[in-house]
Amino acid sequence: MKAPDSNYQDRIRESFARQGLMATLGAALGGISQQHGFVHAGAVSAIADTAAGYAALSLMPPGTGVLTTEFKINLLAPAKGDRIIARARVIKAGRTLTLCQSEVFSETGGQMKLVAFLTATLMAMEGRDGVKD
Amino acid sequence: MKAPDSNYQDRIRESFARQGLMATLGAALGGISQQHGFVHAGAVSAIADTAAGYAALSLMPPGTGVLTTEFKINLLAPAKGDRIIARARVIKAGRTLTLCQSEVFSETGGQMKLVAFLTATLMAMEGRDGVKD
Amino acid sequence: MKAPDSNYQDRIRESFARQGLMATLGAALGGISQQHGFVHAGAVSAIADTAAGYAALSLMPPGTGVLTTEFKINLLAPAKGDRIIARARVIKAGRTLTLCQSEVFSETGGQMKLVAFLTATLMAMEGRDGVKD
Amino acid sequence: MKAPDSNYQDRIRESFARQGLMATLGAALGGISQQHGFVHAGAVSAIADTAAGYAALSLMPPGTGVLTTEFKINLLAPAKGDRIIARARVIKAGRTLTLCQSEVFSETGGQMKLVAFLTATLMAMEGRDGVKD
Repeated sequence: MKAPDSNYQDRIRESFARQGLMATLGAALGGISQQHGFVHAGAVSAIADTAAGYAALSLMPPGTGVLTTEFKINLLAPAKGDRIIARARVIKAGRTLTLCQSEVFSETGGQMKLVAFLTATLMAMEGRDGVKD
Repeated sequence: MKAPDSNYQDRIRESFARQGLMATLGAALGGISQQHGFVHAGAVSAIADTAAGYAALSLMPPGTGVLTTEFKINLLAPAKGDRIIARARVIKAGRTLTLCQSEVFSETGGQMKLVAFLTATLMAMEGRDGVKD
Repeated sequence: MKAPDSNYQDRIRESFARQGLMATLGAALGGISQQHGFVHAGAVSAIADTAAGYAALSLMPPGTGVLTTEFKINLLAPAKGDRIIARARVIKAGRTLTLCQSEVFSETGGQMKLVAFLTATLMAMEGRDGVKD
Repeated sequence: MKAPDSNYQDRIRESFARQGLMATLGAALGGISQQHGFVHAGAVSAIADTAAGYAALSLMPPGTGVLTTEFKINLLAPAKGDRIIARARVIKAGRTLTLCQSEVFSETGGQMKLVAFLTATLMAMEGRDGVKD
C-alpha cells in the first residue's frame, strides 16, 4: 500500500520524539532486565502496540491520530537480550478501522528471536493529531 | 476457589513492592496524563495484565511464579480520571495454565467507568518465585 | 441493563428459529461426537459467538441486526458430554459496538463444566434485521 | 521450516477426508449464502481454525494430533462470493505449543478479498493421531 503523504516518515519521527511512554518504558526495560533478566509482558505489549499504531498511522492522511480499540498478543519466549525490536505491518487498512500485526524480536549477539506476536485494531481519529503519541 | 496458602496476601503484597514496572508506570501515567489527558493503551494493558497475574498467583502454592503466555484486551473508553483501578478474577485455574479476566475502571469524582476488559492465560512456574514481579 | 424493547425475547426466539447454522451445527455435533468423543473447536466457537450475538441483540432496538467484528476464545477443556450450553452477557453496550462474553459449558450427568470462554465485539446494523441469524 | 515427515501431505489429505465438520460446514455455507448472502462468523472461524490446525500438523511428526487451545479472529468484511479460501502458516513451532495465523479470502469473479484474519495456539497431542480431524 502507498502512504497517502510523502512526509509520513517525518510525522512519525516527530510523534515518536513527543512520545513520553516509550522513554519511560526504555527506562523500565533497563531496570527490569537487571531485576529478572527479561522484559515484563506489559512492556513488551506496549512496544508491540506502539509499532502497530505507527504502521497504521503511516497509511493515514496527515492530521489523523490513532487509538487502539483491541489487541491480542501471544508471548512466545522471554524477552531478553541486547535489544528488543518491534516490526509492524498493516493487514487491512479501512477508513475508520485498521488491522495491524506486530512482531517483537529479541536480539542477542546479532541473533534475532521472535518473542511476541500481536494483532491490533486501530481507530483513526480525524483532526486529532497525536492521539497515538 | 480457596487459596491454598493462607499467607498469599502477604506474598502478593511483598511481590508488588518489589515490582519495578508498576512504579515506573505510575510515573508514566502522571506524565502522560498531563500530555494527552488519558492513559496509553500499553500502560492500561500492563496494569490489567498485572492484576490478572496476581489473581492467578493467589490460587497457587507458595514459591510459584507466573508468566503471561497470551492476553487479549478490549479498550472500551479513554482511561482518564482521578484514578485507574484494575480488578481481576480467575476464570479457570489449572495445574499449569490459568485463565483470568481483568477489568480496568477509571474513577472520576467517585464515579467508576469500565475502560478495558482483558482475558489472559498465565503459566505457573514452579520453583521460580517472583517471575511475575 | 434494561432491554429497550419488551418483545426482545420473541424477536430472539424467531430469529433463532430462522437460524440455519445452528441446526446444521446441531447435526454436526452429533456426528462429530460419535467420531472423536468431543465437539470441534470451530463448532464450540460458533455456539459461543451465537450466544454473544443474541446477548448483544437483546439490548438493541427492534429492527437492528448484529455482526461480529472480532472474537477471542479460550478452549479450556474438551467439549464432550450430554449437552453443550452457552451463556452470554453484555460487558459494555455502545451505540455501534457492544462487547460481550460467552461461557460454554458441557453437562454430563447433571454436572456442569466450563469448557470455553469467549469475548466478542459485535456491531449494530440498523435497519438490517436478521443480519445475525 | 522443513516438515519432519515427507508423507505429511498424504496424512493431511487423509485426515481432511475423514473430517466430518468441514463437509457439514460446506453444506452450511450453501444454505446460509442463499439465506443472507454471506457466511456466518462461526463458519468462517471454523474454516480458519481448521487451516491453522493443518498448518501446525504439517510440521509435526506422524502420529501427532493437534487441539486448538485459543484463537482470536478479526472479521474484516462479509464472507461472500464464489468461494471461501483459507491459507494458514506457522508463526512459531514449539514442542508442545505452536502459534499459527490463518487468512480467509472470498473470491468473486477471480478477485480475492481478505475477509478474516486469525491467530491460534495449537497443542500437539502425541500418540493421538487425528485429534484435529
